[in-house]
Amino acid sequence: MTEEIQRQGTMFIFSAPSGGGKSSVIKKLLKELDDIQLSVSVTTRGMREGEVDGKDYYFISEEKFKELVQDKALYEYVDSDFGPKYGTPKKPVDDLLCAGKDVILDLDYPGVQQLRKLAGNRVKAIALVPPSLRVLRERLINRGTDAADVIERRMNMAEKRVKECEFYDYVIVNDDLDAAVMQAKAVILAARAEKQNLCGLETYVRQVLEDK
Amino acid sequence: MTEEIQRQGTMFIFSAPSGGGKSSVIKKLLKELDDIQLSVSVTTRGMREGEVDGKDYYFISEEKFKELVQDKALYEYVDSDFGPKYGTPKKPVDDLLCAGKDVILDLDYPGVQQLRKLAGNRVKAIALVPPSLRVLRERLINRGTDAADVIERRMNMAEKRVKECEFYDYVIVNDDLDAAVMQAKAVILAARAEKQNLCGLETYVRQVLEDK
Repeated sequence: MTEEIQRQGTMFIFSAPSGGGKSSVIKKLLKELDDIQLSVSVTTRGMREGEVDGKDYYFISEEKFKELVQDKALYEYVDSDFGPKYGTPKKPVDDLLCAGKDVILDLDYPGVQQLRKLAGNRVKAIALVPPSLRVLRERLINRGTDAADVIERRMNMAEKRVKECEFYDYVIVNDDLDAAVMQAKAVILAARAEKQNLCGLETYVRQVLEDK
Repeated sequence: MTEEIQRQGTMFIFSAPSGGGKSSVIKKLLKELDDIQLSVSVTTRGMREGEVDGKDYYFISEEKFKELVQDKALYEYVDSDFGPKYGTPKKPVDDLLCAGKDVILDLDYPGVQQLRKLAGNRVKAIALVPPSLRVLRERLINRGTDAADVIERRMNMAEKRVKECEFYDYVIVNDDLDAAVMQAKAVILAARAEKQNLCGLETYVRQVLEDK
């Protein structure tokens, strides 16, 4: 009996403006697909009530963060002078990829750029775009979590995000959640059949030919 | 209301050894997906009973075939000195692609090579491989359409076909038909979200931003 073809995993980066439905899409993907996990970021901000270290974030000190940057142990990071720092640690991601698991990353365009530099052909960047800014504003208002001025700020950011979609590998319009999830799923499943990710293809072919 | 993003279609070439289940996979894809058609080849061989001109093949003369080759009106062709000639006419394929429809082509590796030269980034080549040569032989025997010596010839060809899979963009193991169809479908749907195929992205983004 031939074994399955061994493959290496892919990093799927999802970006969207606030209210773009990114969290809902990612949640569904993680629920409906096997062999895929969400990357857990490191952060220097304090743990909030209900958060779990190693699940929501790896909560680390400023000191430790600097160390990770110096050791080039992060795939990407946001290092603002004010406010907390965030980053994607390489090791847990690489362990998953090597084991043939896919990894979902929730990042904005600067993260995509950094990831591409360090791991170009293992990255697929997916932009979720809303059907219109009007719909996006409605969603933010209906969500009811943001004050009016925060919504305005988010809407200004959204314009930039939507324009950036041209730099992504895939663009998915999030008009209907199920349709968007179906397309995102297709992107992930297709990558699993991509020849460049099938590191065990040679071995597999040998098995197929030997089993006469 | 924003319109859908305009896109150009993709050519999906499927290759497999005889008995590899290519026809069944293609049939299911055409049935289950919208906006996709099978490319109809030209051939110089005579029409067989039950065949329809323009559906099974475009039946043309040797003269006309030569003309198409000279006019570079074929994406690929097999021009053997003995036996009938076959080819893929460009015009109907291009018309479909421009209209945003995808096209499935049933070709072997020489066809893939010719297509890639002429339309590289609009082509995705998918190799269907059997789980083992043993399974392939069983399928050919159970099919009951080939004499023993024909089966032997097919098995010799199969070895070559399986080895060629390393030159394809995607490799799908056809162990279970539904699973193979699901993967092939993912490849097609993913291509529809690929940024390089979204020729109307700029227009779409403008619409999204204008509809505040």
